[in-house]
Amino acid sequence: MQTEKKIIECVPNVSEGKNQATVEKLAAAATVTGASLADYSSDPDHNRSVFTIIGEPDAVFEAAFRLAQAAVETIDLNIHDGAHPRMGAVDVIPFIPLRGSDMNDCVQIAAALGKRLWNDLRLPVFLYEEAASAPHRKNLAVLRKGGFENMANKIKNPEFFPDYGDVLHKTAGITAVGARRPLIAFNVNLDTDDISAAKKIASKIRSANGGLPGVKAIGVAVKGGNTAQVSVNITDYTQTSMYKVLETVRFEAARLGVAVNETEIIGLAPMQAYLDCANYYLGCKNSAGAVKVIESHF
Amino acid sequence: MQTEKKIIECVPNVSEGKNQATVEKLAAAATVTGASLADYSSDPDHNRSVFTIIGEPDAVFEAAFRLAQAAVETIDLNIHDGAHPRMGAVDVIPFIPLRGSDMNDCVQIAAALGKRLWNDLRLPVFLYEEAASAPHRKNLAVLRKGGFENMANKIKNPEFFPDYGDVLHKTAGITAVGARRPLIAFNVNLDTDDISAAKKIASKIRSANGGLPGVKAIGVAVKGGNTAQVSVNITDYTQTSMYKVLETVRFEAARLGVAVNETEIIGLAPMQAYLDCANYYLGCKNSAGAVKVIESHF
Repeated sequence: MQTEKKIIECVPNVSEGKNQATVEKLAAAATVTGASLADYSSDPDHNRSVFTIIGEPDAVFEAAFRLAQAAVETIDLNIHDGAHPRMGAVDVIPFIPLRGSDMNDCVQIAAALGKRLWNDLRLPVFLYEEAASAPHRKNLAVLRKGGFENMANKIKNPEFFPDYGDVLHKTAGITAVGARRPLIAFNVNLDTDDISAAKKIASKIRSANGGLPGVKAIGVAVKGGNTAQVSVNITDYTQTSMYKVLETVRFEAARLGVAVNETEIIGLAPMQAYLDCANYYLGCKNSAGAVKVIESHF
Repeated sequence: MQTEKKIIECVPNVSEGKNQATVEKLAAAATVTGASLADYSSDPDHNRSVFTIIGEPDAVFEAAFRLAQAAVETIDLNIHDGAHPRMGAVDVIPFIPLRGSDMNDCVQIAAALGKRLWNDLRLPVFLYEEAASAPHRKNLAVLRKGGFENMANKIKNPEFFPDYGDVLHKTAGITAVGARRPLIAFNVNLDTDDISAAKKIASKIRSANGGLPGVKAIGVAVKGGNTAQVSVNITDYTQTSMYKVLETVRFEAARLGVAVNETEIIGLAPMQAYLDCANYYLGCKNSAGAVKVIESHF
């Protein structure tokens, strides 16, 4: 049986997905005893990398700080170009409670990291989602709107004054640090280079427009502009499963005369999210909720 | 981190799937400290129940014995009727190495259980699969051929003399006890009551006929004769995934003018088996071999 140490996850998103040497440097920086770098992957079109750190809270906190520090030292947003919206060299740092920990632990860690990023690196910070200091500051898309280029002006508005710091970092911009539930980053590539198709589909499926519950979606160009992608965040996979997103994208795409080519999952997803999809597509009459996985029992 | 205690699995199949009171009695009998009854399910048409016990070897051994004892005391094969082939009240007892244990551990446990079943219960035993005493006695289907009704004669043949005992148990028949790798019991229900369709498809897909590697399959009638079922064992899911079985059944069924209605997984399956299916059907370009499950990291 396992000891009930607190375990949390942290998923920093960094604005560099082209220069593999920089990505490796950041990965090395995130290596701290007690935390494991469970996964990292880069996308050159998004020009963005996603790191997944899992472990004990103090170690994950330290790994996230060191990764942010390395990002601030190496990335200059003034010369950054990519398909994905961004406002910081380290764009967003969410903490997620996993085992023996709760959202309140992660809210406190987010606040502590925000404070340290400003104190040690002069990197200003928005606290977002569960860590947000006001309801209108919860949504990352609202905070990030306008991007790095517009941020120096935006933070003069008291509504968007940073939670830590008072001036944009000249090369690293501003970072959103927060606490949230597990999220699945699920991208669906279409068989077209017509980005307007991806944007239309994204607009149909996002929950803000009355689409699928807990779904955020944007249309972007990937593969050097040759592929239109519906880039999706599923913020509550217990409400909206990946298969539901995929099948909805598929039938909305059909209406536009395009089809789904392939998908990708960025980072990790909870086991139950995969089980839901396996059960759906296999046509299992077994309840997907009933855990039927050997590894769950030892 | 986990301590590396030896963990094994045992999956007794019992010839009773109609009388729920008996099934509950057997489940209660299998409750032993150090072993957990991870799952059990019954099928009235197969007239068979499958129990999954996971834990430390000594405890799993004891739980399997007690379950067998309860089955011998309560089930009379002379009045048993069901779609699934069987030769014993407790028909088959495989042991599977999981963590910190190997096949040799399970072969020894199988032999010890076989000896005890004969000594304590006068239940004769065939050792099968990795525990078999000769190559021609490895395959369960070969040992079981002819069923309970024919077994008193069959075991007079020296080729099929039991490994333990020398005479059939009058009400409980004979039991196959063995050691094997994890197996997935995967049933595919067709939209027809024509059992000949299920038999034809089973014959096409089974590896013995040059079908899918590691696949055993029979055609049976379930749901009171209203549904034809292709009942499949996948003995090596790393070679043949569930999606491959399902899609092959689907296209062979189409040739016969029938379709797949639903499937079911009996007992537990390894996590990777579900991941393979989720990745295939989601069209993930992520490698299914790369573990992307949060729970794998803590």
